[in-house]
Amino acid sequence: MISYMTVRECYDLISYGTDVEIDSIEYVQLQGWIRTNRKGKNVGFIELNDGTYFRNAQCVYESSLEDADTIAKYNTGTAVTITGKFVLTPEGKQPFEVVLTEVVLEGSCSPEYPLQKKRHSYEYLREIAHLRPRTNSFLAVFRVRSVLSMAIHEFFQNQGFVYVHTPIITGNDAEGAGESFTVTTRSDDKYDKDFFGKHANLTVSGQLHGEAFALAFRDIYTFGPTFRAENSNTRTHASEFWMIEPEIAFADLEDTMVLIEDMVKYCIEYVLENAPEEMKFFNERIDTSLMERLQSLLVSDFKRMTYTEAIEILEAVNDRFETQVSWGSDLQTEHERYLCETVVKGPVFLTDYPENIKAFYMRVNEGGKTVAACDLLVPEVGELVGGSQREERLDVLEARMESMGVHKESLEWYLDLRRYGGVKHAGFGIGFERFLMYITAMANIRDVVPFARTPKNLDY
Amino acid sequence: MISYMTVRECYDLISYGTDVEIDSIEYVQLQGWIRTNRKGKNVGFIELNDGTYFRNAQCVYESSLEDADTIAKYNTGTAVTITGKFVLTPEGKQPFEVVLTEVVLEGSCSPEYPLQKKRHSYEYLREIAHLRPRTNSFLAVFRVRSVLSMAIHEFFQNQGFVYVHTPIITGNDAEGAGESFTVTTRSDDKYDKDFFGKHANLTVSGQLHGEAFALAFRDIYTFGPTFRAENSNTRTHASEFWMIEPEIAFADLEDTMVLIEDMVKYCIEYVLENAPEEMKFFNERIDTSLMERLQSLLVSDFKRMTYTEAIEILEAVNDRFETQVSWGSDLQTEHERYLCETVVKGPVFLTDYPENIKAFYMRVNEGGKTVAACDLLVPEVGELVGGSQREERLDVLEARMESMGVHKESLEWYLDLRRYGGVKHAGFGIGFERFLMYITAMANIRDVVPFARTPKNLDY
Repeated sequence: MISYMTVRECYDLISYGTDVEIDSIEYVQLQGWIRTNRKGKNVGFIELNDGTYFRNAQCVYESSLEDADTIAKYNTGTAVTITGKFVLTPEGKQPFEVVLTEVVLEGSCSPEYPLQKKRHSYEYLREIAHLRPRTNSFLAVFRVRSVLSMAIHEFFQNQGFVYVHTPIITGNDAEGAGESFTVTTRSDDKYDKDFFGKHANLTVSGQLHGEAFALAFRDIYTFGPTFRAENSNTRTHASEFWMIEPEIAFADLEDTMVLIEDMVKYCIEYVLENAPEEMKFFNERIDTSLMERLQSLLVSDFKRMTYTEAIEILEAVNDRFETQVSWGSDLQTEHERYLCETVVKGPVFLTDYPENIKAFYMRVNEGGKTVAACDLLVPEVGELVGGSQREERLDVLEARMESMGVHKESLEWYLDLRRYGGVKHAGFGIGFERFLMYITAMANIRDVVPFARTPKNLDY
Repeated sequence: MISYMTVRECYDLISYGTDVEIDSIEYVQLQGWIRTNRKGKNVGFIELNDGTYFRNAQCVYESSLEDADTIAKYNTGTAVTITGKFVLTPEGKQPFEVVLTEVVLEGSCSPEYPLQKKRHSYEYLREIAHLRPRTNSFLAVFRVRSVLSMAIHEFFQNQGFVYVHTPIITGNDAEGAGESFTVTTRSDDKYDKDFFGKHANLTVSGQLHGEAFALAFRDIYTFGPTFRAENSNTRTHASEFWMIEPEIAFADLEDTMVLIEDMVKYCIEYVLENAPEEMKFFNERIDTSLMERLQSLLVSDFKRMTYTEAIEILEAVNDRFETQVSWGSDLQTEHERYLCETVVKGPVFLTDYPENIKAFYMRVNEGGKTVAACDLLVPEVGELVGGSQREERLDVLEARMESMGVHKESLEWYLDLRRYGGVKHAGFGIGFERFLMYITAMANIRDVVPFARTPKNLDY
């Protein structure tokens, strides 16, 4: 009897299967790509990877096997279907091996294959983005990317939130969130003759559209791509990235902070549970303090501190920092990290920022100097999530748009949401890649995006 | 004791709760928007909707209630928090009502509110896309959109498929899939000086990038936005829509057809189970044959028929059609519907199309005249899904690109996938909105997209 299995199923069987289940497997058939193939005088070894797991299946073939000499010539990267006896090897490095009875060539591989068995730098692997998912690091990164996506959907759907696909092409201004890309079918700037009859650009945020849906459904979330045409070449900037933007009605700043804490913890627990081997890999290969950091976050109560309190604390130690702060300053990562790592010693929400350093839609607090905003700061990273209560008072919102130079004409629909039953509501945004980097300890955003888009870089 | 509930929770309690659970609810607090408010001499009625359900909670207030006169003036659209006694009304139209003890104004509503209590046409509602999610039809449509999204993720993740975010901005050509939008930060066509240093456009499909990941992970799927700059104003065309594009390695055309059938059935069952009231609504209000059609699909075995067989059948009755067909013709909806509705009387996969009417990446069948493509045709709609086995033979693929005028330069990475362990693989694409229209019986794509983008239409 031949059992048709994946490599992951083989490992799972040994880890979680009963003796009876394990004993029932006599012969297995696996399909995958050869990672290494070396043959001695009497016996050869193939490490086979099928993408379901970053660990390989060790396959053994004896010289007596028909075609042994042909098999010995299969290069790294060759695709094969193998059949063989499933043998437990509790003393070996691998828990099992497959003693081959048949190898069928499925796809040959040129000897110029750029992924020969050796360590490659992430910089090098970025240049072969179409092949790098075949390496252990990227098998782990992109599987966790998928698992984390599912965590987000499950978290929100389990609580009845409605998933909204907000538009990618918009006619709204960038809402002060940064430079945006133009979308056109012309090669000049006669936008009135363009496809949409006006200037169009790629969205920088789905929040405003999300608000319209929250004021119908109460609890909604978005999860989609957003774009920034910023000419920044840093390890945290990409021109195209995914954002999650939940929005809740009949809710205030405190409600949104509770939601953020719940979501962050749920997603981390979900990933630890659904990608344990991958997380172990990151902890061993990328950052040995990763697991400790995540576990410590899971048992923390996220603290609250106002921006004003934070500035008082920071001003007392201003000489520690490259950039000195005073009330009204935008905080830099060095300040954010000092606050959560040294002062609070854990995750902390900074709240109630000066109104003039935050977006027009944030609710103005009593006194008018600050807005009901919150940033979640976490050790090692700084800001992970940003949220706010939204300004629901039409007159206050209009005055703020005026003073901040936000054009009202294209946002009349957004103002309507305040004219017609506009209750208090709040929400937040989290950059998916930033969250993924936090969870995997991968240091460069280019290494957590399947095909990264950055200035002057549009390969693939 | 006050129980803080949503309207949906109230209905669910009565439908599924035990007597003890129902009896335990004495007072409830609900938050939502007033749909109607009418007051007689002694008693007033508020229909309250909170977006968690398209049915309302009926709230009753007596003239003796403090503020009864103020409450009576609250317009349709006003947001309120109400508290009151939870009373079962098994004889009434609604299964329960709330006898109010308190009403707190949360957000007032101008009397110009465009959603007064009356039937509005979908055409009219499209002009207030930011408010239409508050109507019963759109509460149902957009909740099902969310539920269907989750169905797709669960179907693939349950089977170990890896979710891949393929890029939205690409430098590849449109691969023959239609006109594409340019993405730029300039107002001229000097693309070498542009943000990415070359011409960039919005993706028309994530398939090619998906193939790179399938040849690493084996089974992957995409679910993201795609774009067409086609100047078509029909009820099925939008410039921005979402696609699902799974790709499986070590797999052929038959494997992909099995996957399509499984996915379509899983998703329909999932929606029927997780949005039963919404589906009942569509069956009552939009198309009374909807439920029968879906149920019939669920119990069908999807048949197979080659394109060549189909043409033979169609040619015999060519006078029935507006467009006559012969071998080599692209089929129109009228032909597709005839085949599944009259000939097969159920869902059917048409396979093995002429090579010159299908995309360059489809695998050439023996003889060279046809390719290993499949379209799933379903009654009432025609084509619902399109798939194919991909050409894994480098020389055949290169020859086909040559003859179809597909530029090789920007697709060298795609050809690499054939150079390095390129096994047989297959996949399909399904337009998310088309699937959603099929499931809800909504007739116009503009009514299943939160904020639709079509030629000359970029409001909101």
